[in-house]
Amino acid sequence: MGKQKKVTVSVPINIALIKYWGKRDEELMLPLNDSVSLSIDELRATTTISLVTDAAADSVCINGKEVDLGKQSRFARCFNEVRRLARKRKLDDADGDKTAPSIDGVKFVINSETNFPIEAGLASSAAGFAALAFAFGRLFHLDDTTVVRIARLGSGSACRSVLSGFVHWRAGAAADGSDCDCISLASADHWPELRAVVAVTSGDSKAMGSTRGMENTVETSTLLKHRVSNVVPDRVVRLRHAISSRDFATLANITMRDSNQLHSVCLDTHPPLMYLNEASWHLIGLVHALNDHFGATRVAYTFDAGPNCCLFAEVDFIPTLLACLLKYCPSSGSPTKILEKLDKSTAESAYLGRDSLFDLKSISAMTDAVQYLVVSTVGSGPKVVDM
Amino acid sequence: MGKQKKVTVSVPINIALIKYWGKRDEELMLPLNDSVSLSIDELRATTTISLVTDAAADSVCINGKEVDLGKQSRFARCFNEVRRLARKRKLDDADGDKTAPSIDGVKFVINSETNFPIEAGLASSAAGFAALAFAFGRLFHLDDTTVVRIARLGSGSACRSVLSGFVHWRAGAAADGSDCDCISLASADHWPELRAVVAVTSGDSKAMGSTRGMENTVETSTLLKHRVSNVVPDRVVRLRHAISSRDFATLANITMRDSNQLHSVCLDTHPPLMYLNEASWHLIGLVHALNDHFGATRVAYTFDAGPNCCLFAEVDFIPTLLACLLKYCPSSGSPTKILEKLDKSTAESAYLGRDSLFDLKSISAMTDAVQYLVVSTVGSGPKVVDM
Repeated sequence: MGKQKKVTVSVPINIALIKYWGKRDEELMLPLNDSVSLSIDELRATTTISLVTDAAADSVCINGKEVDLGKQSRFARCFNEVRRLARKRKLDDADGDKTAPSIDGVKFVINSETNFPIEAGLASSAAGFAALAFAFGRLFHLDDTTVVRIARLGSGSACRSVLSGFVHWRAGAAADGSDCDCISLASADHWPELRAVVAVTSGDSKAMGSTRGMENTVETSTLLKHRVSNVVPDRVVRLRHAISSRDFATLANITMRDSNQLHSVCLDTHPPLMYLNEASWHLIGLVHALNDHFGATRVAYTFDAGPNCCLFAEVDFIPTLLACLLKYCPSSGSPTKILEKLDKSTAESAYLGRDSLFDLKSISAMTDAVQYLVVSTVGSGPKVVDM
Repeated sequence: MGKQKKVTVSVPINIALIKYWGKRDEELMLPLNDSVSLSIDELRATTTISLVTDAAADSVCINGKEVDLGKQSRFARCFNEVRRLARKRKLDDADGDKTAPSIDGVKFVINSETNFPIEAGLASSAAGFAALAFAFGRLFHLDDTTVVRIARLGSGSACRSVLSGFVHWRAGAAADGSDCDCISLASADHWPELRAVVAVTSGDSKAMGSTRGMENTVETSTLLKHRVSNVVPDRVVRLRHAISSRDFATLANITMRDSNQLHSVCLDTHPPLMYLNEASWHLIGLVHALNDHFGATRVAYTFDAGPNCCLFAEVDFIPTLLACLLKYCPSSGSPTKILEKLDKSTAESAYLGRDSLFDLKSISAMTDAVQYLVVSTVGSGPKVVDM
């Protein structure tokens, strides 16, 4: 064993503004189209990997629950790749890096905790596999390109959580995946006014998981190919420009349209996939009514393969947005229940602002549409907590 | 005035198996793509047109409620066309048809009744304008092509209710609409085993009307064009073949996929349109579970721009389907409430069959998902009730 036998890292989830849906290679985990994402600083996976010689087998524990690795080939795929790289380096580079630990007889003991329920459909596997890959990278001195690839082998979208800022995952065209990579489009502090508001609408996940869901879409949708070839490339160009010029309205409009198009191709799948519920639709209606009211696009929504909503707005609009969510998504219990994850002064200003708010004529309140809200800065990357 | 001053006609609604969504010409009411439909014999509009000389203005009364014709240009468009044709014939053909009534000083007094709530989103305007056009056709001796065109001027899909059997509405390509027509693909008795089961899920219609909805889709969806040019033409060919060979499974699969694609392009609209509700989704899940259970496609669903479901099955499967609907969509009131529109023996067999039914593991019952069911033969056309 080398000197470093254990590392703890913390990695945020990421939310795609232009969505990944469909693989061009299942084995290499290569996507059909480019995607662009943003990390949500407040929602993180914290993962410790220990390299041990006295364990019978690799083990993974997530939020206190042992993972059955026999049923989760995604972990084996990552572990095999790490072991292959470690052995290869030993052969290639016998005089080289002596600080990297040996792999012979070593088992991986992994413990991961998320600061949000993993059932909530908040890209927990993306954060989890990014954390796993980043931690392996630190233990085995792997470069970013390799860490991105290992994260991707665990969960496609995880590769976008390895970098910070706005991240562009490029699908590439090479059969071996050599041109499939991630680049950071802007640093974490490029757009300091931007905020995410995560609205958890439902804790249960009944719909089909995204891995099988996207396989079915690739097999059966007659619209997906058109999206991949004719819609996404142009959107990526326009979104990159909106990011570099900090043009919120354009970013917001592309984000909403691309979220809706993800769910559109899900509906065009046979049998159809529906990840949104009536609470999601309530939030969609609310955002459009709010933007109409202001005659400007001040808020955007996006939904991954689940009913929870990620809203984006600039920091000056956050008090209005929170007051509006509180007014139109009231809780049947304590009126401030949905604000309990917010700091006290933010929660108070939302609560006080609620009553003096304008009326959105087209919207009726929907009780318990939202369980709780998280307000977050965006764009941070992975970090080492302890080594 | 001629001899015939009044006519009463009865016309069924029609449901598209391949959907119409989007116009290539708003004024001439020309669709972007072909559609194919089937009439539902049991759901009808009964319309009386009287030609009167002592009225101040045209008037339309639907289900006892006066229509504000100043706000409903669709009626004016039909009326103007009928008057233009009547005057033109008088000029063109002074020695001709003496039995057709004169139009000078004549007002139209129209009374229409549907045997289902018009708010239920069951293509009432399609049946209503088809009845209107068919009645005008009888009064003014118009040919089928003209009646189809007048119905279309009122409500695009109405033109499909003018013919009987399976109806193919061809979009055509000519700018003046001269090649936009309807043909009957098979007579009303071509497929006597086929049945429709209409499941009314919700009486309220909050979503955007289909006229404005489809305009928004044409303006904003990046997927609609691909559907129109690359998906529909092939589906029409395959559906026509399935109809001529009475291949239920193929008809059912095309029907479900095209319904889902309609709602898919609605979701790809900005802002997105969602016409389905959780009861609709419950029925979609139920149909797929039922077909999976039998290892064969025995039932199909289709949804227009509303949450109500039209199911298709062959007559031998209807008892199973009804028992299944009763089991998985129970009423919170009287257990047979949803069956009240059925004849007594059909309702009884469904009720008795309910308990001995197989279990669909993936489906939980959803109380009050369905308000009531209508079972109907299909394919009948318009008829004159009284003249």
